[in-house]
Amino acid sequence: MKNLKSLALEADVSLEKIQIRLLDQTLLPHQEKWLNIENNEKMIEAIKALRVRGAPLIGVAASLMIAKLATEKIKSSELLKLAKDLYEARPTAVNLMICVDRMTKSIRSGADIETIVDLAVKIFEEDVDLCEKIAANGALLIENGDQILTHCNTGGLATAGLGTALGVIRKAHEQGKKIHVYVDETRPLLQGGRLTAWELQKLNIPCTLITDNMAAHLMSLKKITKAIVGSDRIAINGDFANKIGTYGVAVSCHYHKVPFFVAAPYTTVDTDCKSGEQIPIEQRAPEEVRGVKGHFGEVLWAPLQVQVYNPAFDVTPAHLVSAWILDRGNYKKSDIEQGVLKSC
Amino acid sequence: MKNLKSLALEADVSLEKIQIRLLDQTLLPHQEKWLNIENNEKMIEAIKALRVRGAPLIGVAASLMIAKLATEKIKSSELLKLAKDLYEARPTAVNLMICVDRMTKSIRSGADIETIVDLAVKIFEEDVDLCEKIAANGALLIENGDQILTHCNTGGLATAGLGTALGVIRKAHEQGKKIHVYVDETRPLLQGGRLTAWELQKLNIPCTLITDNMAAHLMSLKKITKAIVGSDRIAINGDFANKIGTYGVAVSCHYHKVPFFVAAPYTTVDTDCKSGEQIPIEQRAPEEVRGVKGHFGEVLWAPLQVQVYNPAFDVTPAHLVSAWILDRGNYKKSDIEQGVLKSC
Repeated sequence: MKNLKSLALEADVSLEKIQIRLLDQTLLPHQEKWLNIENNEKMIEAIKALRVRGAPLIGVAASLMIAKLATEKIKSSELLKLAKDLYEARPTAVNLMICVDRMTKSIRSGADIETIVDLAVKIFEEDVDLCEKIAANGALLIENGDQILTHCNTGGLATAGLGTALGVIRKAHEQGKKIHVYVDETRPLLQGGRLTAWELQKLNIPCTLITDNMAAHLMSLKKITKAIVGSDRIAINGDFANKIGTYGVAVSCHYHKVPFFVAAPYTTVDTDCKSGEQIPIEQRAPEEVRGVKGHFGEVLWAPLQVQVYNPAFDVTPAHLVSAWILDRGNYKKSDIEQGVLKSC
Repeated sequence: MKNLKSLALEADVSLEKIQIRLLDQTLLPHQEKWLNIENNEKMIEAIKALRVRGAPLIGVAASLMIAKLATEKIKSSELLKLAKDLYEARPTAVNLMICVDRMTKSIRSGADIETIVDLAVKIFEEDVDLCEKIAANGALLIENGDQILTHCNTGGLATAGLGTALGVIRKAHEQGKKIHVYVDETRPLLQGGRLTAWELQKLNIPCTLITDNMAAHLMSLKKITKAIVGSDRIAINGDFANKIGTYGVAVSCHYHKVPFFVAAPYTTVDTDCKSGEQIPIEQRAPEEVRGVKGHFGEVLWAPLQVQVYNPAFDVTPAHLVSAWILDRGNYKKSDIEQGVLKSC
């Protein structure tokens, strides 16, 4: 029996039985409720309803689900069908697809239950290991007394491990460095105000919640010494896409000479993507900007018909980045210019 | 009989009777309800509950209320007492105090009803005139095809006239210039999302609502050609205070070489204030950042106890400003350096 534990996913794993529990992230920060995920329908529902979220964690959760089904002696053809349902639960989640593909490839090759279960555990542990390496590398850049701005949620809720940008912060804190974190609320979906604020409180890391438009003012007061963010996709020239608002943070850091770091696993580097110009920006529903909606309630404050612009991401060009923190190491602009990301 | 009309205040004025109507701004943008303000209690309640808001408009409304009381043949000593109650309705509203002081000075000097009523009408018309001059000056800087970013609410809802920054936009539109306005929602109190969006729709000026953290991204896409904001206080060196988030807009404009304008009446210039460093920044309640609250509803999405930083204003230094648009004219950096604001 192996017990896998992360901030938002737990699994008791044996060859006879796998039990999966997910922290229902839709209820955060006001309720901490764990869900027993007994079957594929429940996992698909949890993925679709964002009860489990964060690209790496979704991939890990789906892999464990497939392994669980394998322990239930479901025959291969049926198992592949159930895996396909999982694969399609969130069409834009690349990690989900990669992980499900790894699992189904193993099933198709005729692997036995032990091999399938081992692979799911390996996928979990790989994610933990990537986070650990990113955190260890990034923490080298954090100094005692730093006041660190972060944007969106990039921590233990989104991965099986420490997280990416927030993992760096957590590691520095665990190393005994005295730090303070300023948390952008991250409109429109409020991942900072809802999730990062909760996670930092849970970890007893001192933090202050702000609206996104306060960060520049804080920098002018010299209250922010560093900024660190995650990434959804990194081009080989170092440009990267991340949650809308990241670019504004980078511009403000540049103006105030505040070091600006991006932290991500090597899997985020898209070696087919030459520069940020090739990264498409998904547009989301206008209602998200006209108000807010969640388990906490729903309000609409803007005129019902007002035109809205709602990009999910923005692109930050490499020249605004002070360092790229990857599991393989920390890279400077000169490293990037020499093509270090091409071999990721 | 004189009929005074503005976007959020109307008054029928004669020496026998004054009728005051206020648009209840707490119900915007979803309801447009006009309130008859029959007595001093109702006006005080409207000021305290922010049914009437915007520093200039509050001063105008209070002046008309005092004139109305004068037409009701209330004796001077009682009138001065009622005026004092008005004066104290919003302790930080300088315009309110200045206007009430002008009215009570007239009453104390033994002025007759006609003189008192004329003064209130004059205060209304002065505000209209200031807005008109600001708008005419500012519109000289707006070109056909401009895509203009604005922050907070600075229009006809906050003044008796066209407004300040939004008045410039309105004037350019009325002059037939084809413009598009990007409206920062202006967290935490959402004056942009609630009021500016409503006002621009009412005026049929094309606009797009965004969250504050999208402005820099839009600038990187060259979708914003100018930015214009109002001000709460301008120091004689050109530094100015305005709604939190203004400074971040200015920094982003500077980086993207987008002209950044501030528009305000001469009364906003504080000749006792040498620089922005002397402007105190009011801190507001943490609940405003932990969620939102208004007639539209109330939700709380952040952890209940999370520490919050919530400054009402920030200060933008003069070197980030492309032009100061005042009723007296448009000023460049060189004008400011030569001390033009000292004589405001």
